[in-house]
Amino acid sequence: MSARLELVALDGIGEIQPGDDLAAVIVDAATATGVDLTDADVLVITQKIVSKAEGRLVPLASVEPSAFAVEWAGRWGKDPRQVELVLRESSSIVRMGPGGLIISRTRHGLVCANAGVDVSNVGGGDVASLLPLDPDASARAIRDALASTRGVRPAVIISDSFGRPWRNGIVNVAIGSAGIEPLLDLRGTPDAAGREMQATVIAAADQLASAADLAGGKTDGRPVVLVRGYGWRPSEAGASALVMERERDLFP
Amino acid sequence: MSARLELVALDGIGEIQPGDDLAAVIVDAATATGVDLTDADVLVITQKIVSKAEGRLVPLASVEPSAFAVEWAGRWGKDPRQVELVLRESSSIVRMGPGGLIISRTRHGLVCANAGVDVSNVGGGDVASLLPLDPDASARAIRDALASTRGVRPAVIISDSFGRPWRNGIVNVAIGSAGIEPLLDLRGTPDAAGREMQATVIAAADQLASAADLAGGKTDGRPVVLVRGYGWRPSEAGASALVMERERDLFP
Repeated sequence: MSARLELVALDGIGEIQPGDDLAAVIVDAATATGVDLTDADVLVITQKIVSKAEGRLVPLASVEPSAFAVEWAGRWGKDPRQVELVLRESSSIVRMGPGGLIISRTRHGLVCANAGVDVSNVGGGDVASLLPLDPDASARAIRDALASTRGVRPAVIISDSFGRPWRNGIVNVAIGSAGIEPLLDLRGTPDAAGREMQATVIAAADQLASAADLAGGKTDGRPVVLVRGYGWRPSEAGASALVMERERDLFP
Repeated sequence: MSARLELVALDGIGEIQPGDDLAAVIVDAATATGVDLTDADVLVITQKIVSKAEGRLVPLASVEPSAFAVEWAGRWGKDPRQVELVLRESSSIVRMGPGGLIISRTRHGLVCANAGVDVSNVGGGDVASLLPLDPDASARAIRDALASTRGVRPAVIISDSFGRPWRNGIVNVAIGSAGIEPLLDLRGTPDAAGREMQATVIAAADQLASAADLAGGKTDGRPVVLVRGYGWRPSEAGASALVMERERDLFP
């Protein structure tokens, strides 16, 4: 942990296409922004551009909705093909609520609205983007590409915005990571007054994702933020370590 | 939203005592750190020092536990007086779980572990600190004191660390705020590709609280972090706007 941090949103990242080399895009954007990537930095990348680069896109016209999807969509004025994709991307349903909201658990164990399925109009047709199949592997691939082509190994976090029970508004969390310890376990460490802390495990990667959103923002087209000055701990663990084990979960 | 932000943890804040003038403490710490507070800054202050300054401290020796508190504490090896305070600080119980964990809703509507009650040893006796009675009022008081004594009006956020369902680790959230719009409502705003965003309300104050923890940290005794460069929107709303209305809540 450092006393002084800087967050820099990278400039010049345009629309990402399937097959794009994100490591190269990020290096170019860093150059355009006037920053040199270092091994001490953290790169926070929004899920949306990772999914696009990986081709996790489904034209809605290609989706055949089930009877259940048609029924639920009809009840709430939703697109049944989008509902169908949400159900396909879910391993279990946590809540279905007013307005057609579906909160479910994805194959990654992430609990979020609409299983991360996001529909937008691309080139005249509605296209859904899905979460990366393995966001930790996506983060590792970007980190490895940066290392092999540029000799630089920053930590990499892939972020997405989630709602929360009991609190209004969405915050960014880490759905994938590479290089960085996502959970800072301070149990047994003395606190500022010298007392041992009993139950303090900090979701550092989630806090980094939230911090990055303050600089990148939703409307600005700056999907990559560099965090400089945060003393992260190296680890082979991915952001999957942030997913709570079902048996520990009081809200299954 | 800005493309470049700085987080600076203020130096030189020692142990806070009941009655301490936090605005004066923060001004001195800013001077010691070599930063001048401005109206554009956000100050993120941990709840712990606000509770201490406000004298929200209860010696455990003064607490008479109920039969229910004695039973629950005995079952899990907890201090019955601490359990009693948790129950008194709760308006309703959300979950009681293994290890004696109590997740409850406080009078502020905050859902968290142990109702924000934190026990530490102060001067040879165990003392519990409780959440501020009205954290938005606490934030306003600090902001007003900065304005009247120093002529500066930064946004003020009071943060605390909360666990979350489904995810491991704690993150800092905003339990009080003054000056700043805690929720950034981007519904109807065009996104980077020019499409109107439908369901995007960002919990900006929570993300600021999480970001600040990256700089301040738990072990470092730096309970106040200055966020510089974030283009916050002014508002009379407090962080109570982050508390979800019970009728909208799918996890009551």
